[in-house]
Amino acid sequence: MNKGLPIVISAPSGCGKDTILEQLYKKNQNLVQSVSATTRAIREGETDGVSYHFTTVEAFEKMIENGDVLEYTSYCGNYYGTPKKAVTDLLAQGKDVILKIEVEGAMNIKKIFPECVLIFILPPSISELERRLRKRGTETEETIAARTAQARNELEFADKFDYLVVNGDLDKAVDDVNAVILAEKMKAERNAALLEEIKRS
Amino acid sequence: MNKGLPIVISAPSGCGKDTILEQLYKKNQNLVQSVSATTRAIREGETDGVSYHFTTVEAFEKMIENGDVLEYTSYCGNYYGTPKKAVTDLLAQGKDVILKIEVEGAMNIKKIFPECVLIFILPPSISELERRLRKRGTETEETIAARTAQARNELEFADKFDYLVVNGDLDKAVDDVNAVILAEKMKAERNAALLEEIKRS
Repeated sequence: MNKGLPIVISAPSGCGKDTILEQLYKKNQNLVQSVSATTRAIREGETDGVSYHFTTVEAFEKMIENGDVLEYTSYCGNYYGTPKKAVTDLLAQGKDVILKIEVEGAMNIKKIFPECVLIFILPPSISELERRLRKRGTETEETIAARTAQARNELEFADKFDYLVVNGDLDKAVDDVNAVILAEKMKAERNAALLEEIKRS
Repeated sequence: MNKGLPIVISAPSGCGKDTILEQLYKKNQNLVQSVSATTRAIREGETDGVSYHFTTVEAFEKMIENGDVLEYTSYCGNYYGTPKKAVTDLLAQGKDVILKIEVEGAMNIKKIFPECVLIFILPPSISELERRLRKRGTETEETIAARTAQARNELEFADKFDYLVVNGDLDKAVDDVNAVILAEKMKAERNAALLEEIKRS
């Protein structure tokens, strides 16, 4: 069995990343999202290892120290992050693993995890992004301005990613992300074992 | 408008390359096959620039001398080859151009034309390839043995290609080749202009 592919998906807020992923999981059954670890208490209805990997502050800080966390953040006194082992276990099972990581965090991942494929979701234009944020009806003008400014900053990192996918039309964007995943899995360097098998057949 | 993508497709004989391409042209309207040049006489029903670019021996040899032919061969006293300009003109029009080139020739193309994407079509196994060659009913046992041996030699070059596509199921192989083409067009390095446009918007 081939090892799975680790895929980092990043996008400025409002680019439709979550909607793309929702559709993508329906289309591609070999795709799973990595489960984050957290130090916050487990809540009613949550399952350890499904909702999150629940752990202690000591254990989380030990993971950070040992370089076992791909990226992490702390929010309301609790840690949230991506344990490397949770990802590598899924990859070993042959699953392709989606890592939803904010733009700057994605730059670090590539250093720890060079086999990652980095996909950046782009808005068709900044004005369209602004229009979409406004359409939600939940954001103040101030928030819209702040998010648009942040999107501009994040776009400065886009050329460090491997692939750029424009989310103009949702269905096309889903197909595009899926095509990138399929194509990466056909790279000759990822298929040395398959090639040997065919040669020997 | 974005420049098109030059795509080299190579495969051992019997791997179904021509059938894959036939289906692929129906699926992807932006794809065209490069027109070869030849020194043989034009025949009834042929159109210059469509069937072939018809040219003289002197002109063809001048093209070879100037490095203007991506690859060529001579057969029955006539030259046949791929003029670089025929390809670059189509690329400039934004077309993605398929170059059907035999395995060893593909290795040279990458030197002259480094932006080429090289796709190798593999049989699911050598025994399946043999079975397909036999099924045609047109080949002698000697030819089948020779072709299988040649396929084994050609497989030694497969790891020098960018992508490996296994033709086990035709529809899947067509989708796979198409996914590679779509994905390559989304590479960040090919989309610097698009990114600038979005940043400025």
